[in-house]
Amino acid sequence: MRLSLFSDYSLRVLMYAALKGESFQMDEVTKAYGISRHHLAKVVQRLAQLGYLETRRGRQGGITLAKPPEEIRLGRLVRDTEGQPAIVECFDPATNTCPINGSCQLKGILGQALRDFYAVLDRHTLKDTVHGPHRARMTKVLLG
Amino acid sequence: MRLSLFSDYSLRVLMYAALKGESFQMDEVTKAYGISRHHLAKVVQRLAQLGYLETRRGRQGGITLAKPPEEIRLGRLVRDTEGQPAIVECFDPATNTCPINGSCQLKGILGQALRDFYAVLDRHTLKDTVHGPHRARMTKVLLG
Repeated sequence: MRLSLFSDYSLRVLMYAALKGESFQMDEVTKAYGISRHHLAKVVQRLAQLGYLETRRGRQGGITLAKPPEEIRLGRLVRDTEGQPAIVECFDPATNTCPINGSCQLKGILGQALRDFYAVLDRHTLKDTVHGPHRARMTKVLLG
Repeated sequence: MRLSLFSDYSLRVLMYAALKGESFQMDEVTKAYGISRHHLAKVVQRLAQLGYLETRRGRQGGITLAKPPEEIRLGRLVRDTEGQPAIVECFDPATNTCPINGSCQLKGILGQALRDFYAVLDRHTLKDTVHGPHRARMTKVLLG
Protein backbone atom coordinates (compact mmCIF):
# COMPACT_ATOMS: atom_id res chain seq x y z
CA MET A 1 0.00 0.00 0.00
CA ARG A 2 1.47 3.25 -1.05
CA LEU A 3 0.77 6.95 -0.73
CA SER A 4 1.30 8.93 -3.92
CA LEU A 5 4.56 10.79 -4.37
CA PHE A 6 2.36 13.86 -4.41
CA SER A 7 1.20 13.17 -0.82
CA ASP A 8 4.75 12.35 0.22
CA TYR A 9 6.10 15.68 -1.10
CA SER A 10 3.11 17.56 0.32
CA LEU A 11 3.83 16.26 3.80
CA ARG A 12 7.51 17.14 3.44
CA VAL A 13 6.99 20.70 2.30
CA LEU A 14 4.37 21.34 4.99
CA MET A 15 6.66 19.93 7.68
CA TYR A 16 9.41 22.19 6.36
CA ALA A 17 7.04 25.16 6.50
CA ALA A 18 6.01 24.31 10.06
CA LEU A 19 9.62 24.00 11.23
CA LYS A 20 10.66 27.20 9.43
CA GLY A 21 7.85 29.28 10.89
CA GLU A 22 8.43 32.11 8.38
CA SER A 23 8.54 32.73 4.63
CA PHE A 24 10.85 30.48 2.59
CA GLN A 25 11.87 29.76 -1.02
CA MET A 26 11.18 26.60 -2.99
CA ASP A 27 14.89 25.97 -3.51
CA GLU A 28 15.41 25.64 0.22
CA VAL A 29 13.02 22.70 0.26
CA THR A 30 14.46 20.93 -2.79
CA LYS A 31 17.92 21.27 -1.26
CA ALA A 32 16.84 20.16 2.22
CA TYR A 33 15.25 16.94 0.98
CA GLY A 34 17.20 16.43 -2.24
CA ILE A 35 14.00 16.26 -4.29
CA SER A 36 12.99 17.44 -7.77
CA ARG A 37 12.17 21.16 -8.11
CA HIS A 38 9.90 20.46 -11.07
CA HIS A 39 7.69 18.11 -9.07
CA LEU A 40 7.80 20.25 -5.94
CA ALA A 41 6.58 23.32 -7.86
CA LYS A 42 3.38 21.48 -8.79
CA VAL A 43 2.92 20.33 -5.21
CA VAL A 44 3.31 23.87 -3.83
CA GLN A 45 0.89 25.25 -6.40
CA ARG A 46 -1.72 22.63 -5.52
CA LEU A 47 -1.26 23.09 -1.76
CA ALA A 48 -1.86 26.81 -2.28
CA GLN A 49 -5.08 26.06 -4.19
CA LEU A 50 -6.16 23.74 -1.37
CA GLY A 51 -5.55 26.46 1.22
CA TYR A 52 -2.57 24.92 2.99
CA LEU A 53 0.13 27.28 1.69
CA GLU A 54 0.31 30.94 0.71
CA THR A 55 2.67 31.97 -2.07
CA ARG A 56 3.82 35.50 -2.91
CA ARG A 57 5.81 36.43 -5.97
CA GLY A 58 8.46 39.08 -6.23
CA ARG A 59 11.43 40.19 -4.18
CA GLN A 60 9.51 40.09 -0.91
CA GLY A 61 7.88 36.85 -2.04
CA GLY A 62 8.03 33.35 -0.69
CA ILE A 63 5.99 30.50 0.71
CA THR A 64 4.31 30.33 4.12
CA LEU A 65 1.76 28.14 5.83
CA ALA A 66 -1.75 29.47 5.24
CA LYS A 67 -2.84 28.45 8.73
CA PRO A 68 -1.26 27.37 12.02
CA PRO A 69 0.20 23.80 12.05
CA GLU A 70 -2.20 22.76 14.81
CA GLU A 71 -5.12 23.51 12.49
CA ILE A 72 -3.91 21.24 9.70
CA ARG A 73 -5.33 17.81 10.42
CA LEU A 74 -3.36 15.02 8.73
CA GLY A 75 -6.43 12.98 7.79
CA ARG A 76 -7.99 15.88 5.88
CA LEU A 77 -4.66 16.74 4.31
CA VAL A 78 -3.88 13.23 3.05
CA ARG A 79 -7.44 12.76 1.76
CA ASP A 80 -6.94 16.02 -0.15
CA THR A 81 -3.53 15.14 -1.54
CA GLU A 82 -4.42 11.54 -2.40
CA GLY A 83 -7.40 12.75 -4.39
CA GLN A 84 -8.45 10.27 -7.04
CA PRO A 85 -6.29 7.17 -6.69
CA ALA A 86 -8.87 4.74 -5.32
CA ILE A 87 -7.58 1.94 -3.08
CA VAL A 88 -8.91 -0.51 -5.71
CA GLU A 89 -10.76 0.38 -8.90
CA CYS A 90 -14.30 -0.26 -7.61
CA PHE A 91 -13.98 2.66 -5.17
CA ASP A 92 -14.11 4.97 -8.20
CA PRO A 93 -17.31 4.55 -10.26
CA ALA A 94 -15.57 6.21 -13.22
CA THR A 95 -12.95 3.48 -13.54
CA ASN A 96 -14.66 0.38 -12.17
CA THR A 97 -14.85 -2.62 -14.48
CA CYS A 98 -15.39 -5.34 -11.86
CA PRO A 99 -18.66 -7.20 -12.51
CA ILE A 100 -19.34 -8.12 -8.87
CA ASN A 101 -19.26 -4.51 -7.66
CA GLY A 102 -22.48 -4.06 -5.69
CA SER A 103 -22.51 -7.55 -4.22
CA CYS A 104 -18.83 -7.94 -3.32
CA GLN A 105 -18.24 -8.28 0.42
CA LEU A 106 -14.59 -7.30 0.16
CA LYS A 107 -15.42 -3.70 -0.66
CA GLY A 108 -17.00 -3.15 2.75
CA ILE A 109 -14.01 -4.67 4.52
CA LEU A 110 -11.51 -2.54 2.57
CA GLY A 111 -13.69 0.51 3.18
CA GLN A 112 -13.57 -0.08 6.93
CA ALA A 113 -9.80 -0.61 6.83
CA LEU A 114 -9.41 2.68 4.99
CA ARG A 115 -11.62 4.53 7.49
CA ASP A 116 -9.50 3.15 10.35
CA PHE A 117 -6.35 4.27 8.52
CA TYR A 118 -7.62 7.82 8.17
CA ALA A 119 -9.02 7.82 11.72
CA VAL A 120 -5.43 7.60 13.02
CA LEU A 121 -4.36 10.52 10.81
CA ASP A 122 -7.43 12.48 11.93
CA ARG A 123 -6.16 12.31 15.51
CA HIS A 124 -2.99 14.20 14.54
CA THR A 125 -2.14 17.60 13.14
CA LEU A 126 0.86 18.97 11.28
CA LYS A 127 2.11 20.33 14.59
CA ASP A 128 2.43 16.76 15.95
CA THR A 129 4.85 15.89 13.12
CA VAL A 130 7.38 18.56 14.10
CA HIS A 131 6.82 18.59 17.84
CA GLY A 132 8.58 16.83 20.67
CA PRO A 133 12.12 15.78 21.49
CA HIS A 134 13.24 15.36 17.84
CA ARG A 135 12.26 18.86 16.74
CA ALA A 136 15.76 20.23 17.26
CA ARG A 137 17.38 17.50 15.18
CA MET A 138 14.84 17.84 12.36
CA THR A 139 15.37 21.60 12.33
CA LYS A 140 19.16 21.18 12.19
CA VAL A 141 19.04 18.64 9.34
CA LEU A 142 16.51 20.56 7.23
CA LEU A 143 17.20 24.19 8.01
CA GLY A 144 20.91 23.90 8.76
CA MET B 1 -3.83 5.36 -1.18
CA ARG B 2 -3.82 2.44 -3.48
CA LEU B 3 -3.30 -1.30 -3.36
CA SER B 4 -1.15 -2.69 -6.16
CA LEU B 5 -2.86 -4.23 -9.19
CA PHE B 6 -1.15 -7.39 -8.07
CA SER B 7 -3.09 -7.38 -4.76
CA ASP B 8 -6.30 -6.50 -6.57
CA TYR B 9 -5.97 -9.45 -8.97
CA SER B 10 -4.87 -11.74 -6.14
CA LEU B 11 -8.03 -10.98 -4.19
CA ARG B 12 -10.16 -11.51 -7.30
CA VAL B 13 -8.71 -14.87 -8.23
CA LEU B 14 -8.90 -16.12 -4.64
CA MET B 15 -12.54 -15.02 -4.35
CA TYR B 16 -13.22 -16.82 -7.61
CA ALA B 17 -11.54 -19.95 -6.24
CA ALA B 18 -13.54 -19.76 -3.02
CA LEU B 19 -16.84 -19.39 -4.88
CA LYS B 20 -15.98 -22.16 -7.34
CA GLY B 21 -15.04 -24.66 -4.64
CA GLU B 22 -13.35 -26.98 -7.16
CA SER B 23 -10.61 -26.99 -9.81
CA PHE B 24 -10.80 -24.28 -12.47
CA GLN B 25 -8.87 -22.92 -15.46
CA MET B 26 -7.17 -19.54 -15.72
CA ASP B 27 -9.29 -18.57 -18.73
CA GLU B 28 -12.45 -18.79 -16.61
CA VAL B 29 -11.08 -16.08 -14.34
CA THR B 30 -9.92 -13.75 -17.11
CA LYS B 31 -13.34 -14.09 -18.73
CA ALA B 32 -15.27 -13.64 -15.48
CA TYR B 33 -13.54 -10.37 -14.58
CA GLY B 34 -12.49 -9.23 -18.05
CA ILE B 35 -8.84 -8.95 -17.00
CA SER B 36 -5.51 -9.63 -18.73
CA ARG B 37 -4.44 -13.29 -18.92
CA HIS B 38 -0.80 -12.30 -19.05
CA HIS B 39 -0.95 -10.45 -15.73
CA LEU B 40 -3.19 -13.06 -14.11
CA ALA B 41 -0.74 -15.85 -14.96
CA LYS B 42 1.96 -14.11 -12.92
CA VAL B 43 -0.46 -13.60 -10.04
CA VAL B 44 -1.49 -17.28 -10.00
CA GLN B 45 2.14 -18.40 -10.09
CA ARG B 46 3.04 -16.14 -7.18
CA LEU B 47 -0.02 -17.17 -5.13
CA ALA B 48 1.01 -20.80 -5.65
CA GLN B 49 4.54 -19.98 -4.39
CA LEU B 50 3.01 -18.24 -1.37
CA GLY B 51 0.87 -21.29 -0.58
CA TYR B 52 -2.54 -19.83 -1.37
CA LEU B 53 -3.22 -21.76 -4.60
CA GLU B 54 -2.34 -25.18 -5.97
CA THR B 55 -1.79 -25.57 -9.69
CA ARG B 56 -1.68 -28.84 -11.64
CA ARG B 57 -0.66 -29.14 -15.27
CA GLY B 58 -2.04 -31.56 -17.81
CA ARG B 59 -5.48 -32.71 -18.87
CA GLN B 60 -6.63 -33.28 -15.31
CA GLY B 61 -4.94 -30.02 -14.33
CA GLY B 62 -6.30 -26.78 -12.99
CA ILE B 63 -6.16 -24.35 -10.10
CA THR B 64 -7.57 -24.85 -6.61
CA LEU B 65 -7.29 -23.14 -3.25
CA ALA B 66 -4.41 -24.61 -1.26
CA LYS B 67 -6.34 -24.23 2.00
CA PRO B 68 -9.91 -23.60 3.16
CA PRO B 69 -11.17 -19.98 2.67
CA GLU B 70 -11.70 -19.60 6.41
CA GLU B 71 -7.98 -20.17 6.94
CA ILE B 72 -6.89 -17.39 4.58
CA ARG B 73 -6.71 -14.23 6.66
CA LEU B 74 -6.98 -11.07 4.56
CA GLY B 75 -4.37 -9.13 6.55
CA ARG B 76 -1.71 -11.78 6.00
CA LEU B 77 -2.71 -12.14 2.35
CA VAL B 78 -2.54 -8.43 1.54
CA ARG B 79 0.74 -8.01 3.41
CA ASP B 80 2.07 -10.89 1.25
CA THR B 81 0.75 -9.54 -2.04
CA GLU B 82 1.71 -5.92 -1.35
CA GLY B 83 5.28 -7.00 -0.65
CA GLN B 84 7.73 -4.21 -1.21
CA PRO B 85 5.78 -1.03 -2.07
CA ALA B 86 6.33 0.91 1.14
CA ILE B 87 3.63 3.43 2.10
CA VAL B 88 6.29 6.15 1.77
CA GLU B 89 9.95 5.63 0.90
CA CYS B 90 11.32 5.79 4.46
CA PHE B 91 9.50 2.55 5.34
CA ASP B 92 11.99 0.76 3.09
CA PRO B 93 15.62 1.28 4.18
CA ALA B 94 16.77 0.26 0.68
CA THR B 95 15.06 3.20 -1.01
CA ASN B 96 14.97 5.90 1.67
CA THR B 97 16.61 9.20 0.79
CA CYS B 98 14.83 11.41 3.34
CA PRO B 99 17.35 13.11 5.63
CA ILE B 100 15.03 13.37 8.66
CA ASN B 101 14.36 9.63 8.78
CA GLY B 102 15.09 8.64 12.38
CA SER B 103 13.78 11.84 13.93
CA CYS B 104 10.60 12.35 11.85
CA GLN B 105 7.43 12.11 13.93
CA LEU B 106 5.25 11.47 10.89
CA LYS B 107 6.68 8.00 10.39
CA GLY B 108 5.25 6.77 13.71
CA ILE B 109 1.83 8.22 12.88
CA LEU B 110 1.75 6.63 9.41
CA GLY B 111 2.98 3.36 10.92
CA GLN B 112 0.09 3.35 13.39
CA ALA B 113 -2.41 4.15 10.62
CA LEU B 114 -1.06 1.24 8.59
CA ARG B 115 -1.30 -1.13 11.56
CA ASP B 116 -4.94 -0.10 12.08
CA PHE B 117 -5.61 -0.66 8.36
CA TYR B 118 -4.24 -4.20 8.51
CA ALA B 119 -5.94 -4.88 11.86
CA VAL B 120 -9.31 -4.60 10.08
CA LEU B 121 -8.18 -7.02 7.38
CA ASP B 122 -6.82 -9.38 10.06
CA ARG B 123 -10.32 -9.69 11.48
CA HIS B 124 -11.60 -11.18 8.20
CA THR B 125 -10.87 -14.24 6.12
CA LEU B 126 -11.39 -15.06 2.45
CA LYS B 127 -14.57 -16.85 3.48
CA ASP B 128 -16.07 -13.55 4.68
CA THR B 129 -15.65 -12.04 1.21
CA VAL B 130 -17.88 -14.66 -0.46
CA HIS B 131 -20.26 -15.35 2.39
CA GLY B 132 -23.67 -13.97 3.21
CA PRO B 133 -26.70 -12.82 1.28
CA HIS B 134 -24.77 -11.70 -1.83
CA ARG B 135 -23.05 -15.04 -2.41
CA ALA B 136 -25.68 -16.24 -4.89
CA ARG B 137 -25.41 -13.10 -7.00
CA MET B 138 -21.61 -13.12 -7.02
CA THR B 139 -21.66 -16.79 -8.05
CA LYS B 140 -24.12 -16.09 -10.86
CA VAL B 141 -22.11 -13.14 -12.20
CA LEU B 142 -18.74 -14.86 -12.02
CA LEU B 143 -19.51 -18.52 -12.61
CA GLY B 144 -22.56 -18.12 -14.85
